[in-house]
Amino acid sequence: MARILSMATPRQPAASARLIEQLTHLPGIGPRSAERIAFHLLKQPESDARQLAQAILDFRTQLKACSTCGNVSETDPCPICNDASRDASILLVVERPLDIASIEATGQYRGLYHVLMGRIAPMDRVGPGDLNLAPLFDRIEHSQETDQPIEEVILGLNPTLESDGTALQLAADLEKHKVRVTRLARGLPTGSSLETVSKAVLADSLHGRVGMG
Amino acid sequence: MARILSMATPRQPAASARLIEQLTHLPGIGPRSAERIAFHLLKQPESDARQLAQAILDFRTQLKACSTCGNVSETDPCPICNDASRDASILLVVERPLDIASIEATGQYRGLYHVLMGRIAPMDRVGPGDLNLAPLFDRIEHSQETDQPIEEVILGLNPTLESDGTALQLAADLEKHKVRVTRLARGLPTGSSLETVSKAVLADSLHGRVGMG
Repeated sequence: MARILSMATPRQPAASARLIEQLTHLPGIGPRSAERIAFHLLKQPESDARQLAQAILDFRTQLKACSTCGNVSETDPCPICNDASRDASILLVVERPLDIASIEATGQYRGLYHVLMGRIAPMDRVGPGDLNLAPLFDRIEHSQETDQPIEEVILGLNPTLESDGTALQLAADLEKHKVRVTRLARGLPTGSSLETVSKAVLADSLHGRVGMG
Repeated sequence: MARILSMATPRQPAASARLIEQLTHLPGIGPRSAERIAFHLLKQPESDARQLAQAILDFRTQLKACSTCGNVSETDPCPICNDASRDASILLVVERPLDIASIEATGQYRGLYHVLMGRIAPMDRVGPGDLNLAPLFDRIEHSQETDQPIEEVILGLNPTLESDGTALQLAADLEKHKVRVTRLARGLPTGSSLETVSKAVLADSLHGRVGMG
């Protein structure tokens, strides 16, 4: 091939370099994913990019993480932490803000919450340091010095392998604090049938059987 | 536990639901990653979210994908496709826009480019349909009807397992088109030593040995 020195050396456009850099600051997004996202945005209508940018701004300006429980809220502390009528001696630990909504919908719980914002998942590169854990231990510690100590921590994590692992580690970490650690019950889901539930569910329901008294 | 019916049922704040929905529209981002990203944004200074939103807007409004080669550019067609002095009979296929900058920096290539925007990577859920492939075949096809037919397609993909697989598939797909298909040479990187390069590099340099004539 003829050795023709071309003077044109197009660099990466600044706007492109800037977006890719910004995206790689986000958790779980490396340079390759950032490029894929950028290319995706380029293929979609401009209005999609505008909506995404607006959603980011609205989210960040309208919402905060509750500095007590970690829940996403329009106020800090969030309405639940701020509700003096709730029982501050019980803490229900959940993975996600949405889990709070599910529990609240039952109308069966009047304690407070703590949101981990995930579970330990090495495959997704989520370690204990990525979770809202240190504030949980601090919260328990500090409560012991008040007249409303936290007495029970209910682990309300998902019944999955990764979340079970997280719950086990959490229970071990909580041993040194003066709290009772419990977890949500497992067994047959109401409305199901023995014929359709999995072996794991049946095993749980056997191990966790309770007296009829 | 006392069965106290709480009337408070905090739903997910609208701004939160909207951001998570917008994020899950992006490639490679599921609901879990979207939540992690949202929580991350909440923990960082508000200026970070503003910069990200602005980078998205700037990128989408200032840049386009060149409708000919797929390169990211401020103009369509991009400066390279628009340069009549370049040799339109040769097409160098690269994975990413940045690869064009690297090749251009050598000053040794005066043909045109085609950007795949990735490589086939089942582990990352990137299939042939996610790449800029159909426009490549169309481009070759259409060029045959002009006075500047594409005669050679150089595969300039990365020397990695996934990219090699992509190149093999691409070469097979190109067989039905009347073009010569070549790939970039492999061997000892200039400036290295036989002592330090890997066995794979040495094997490549043996298989690809050339006459000294």
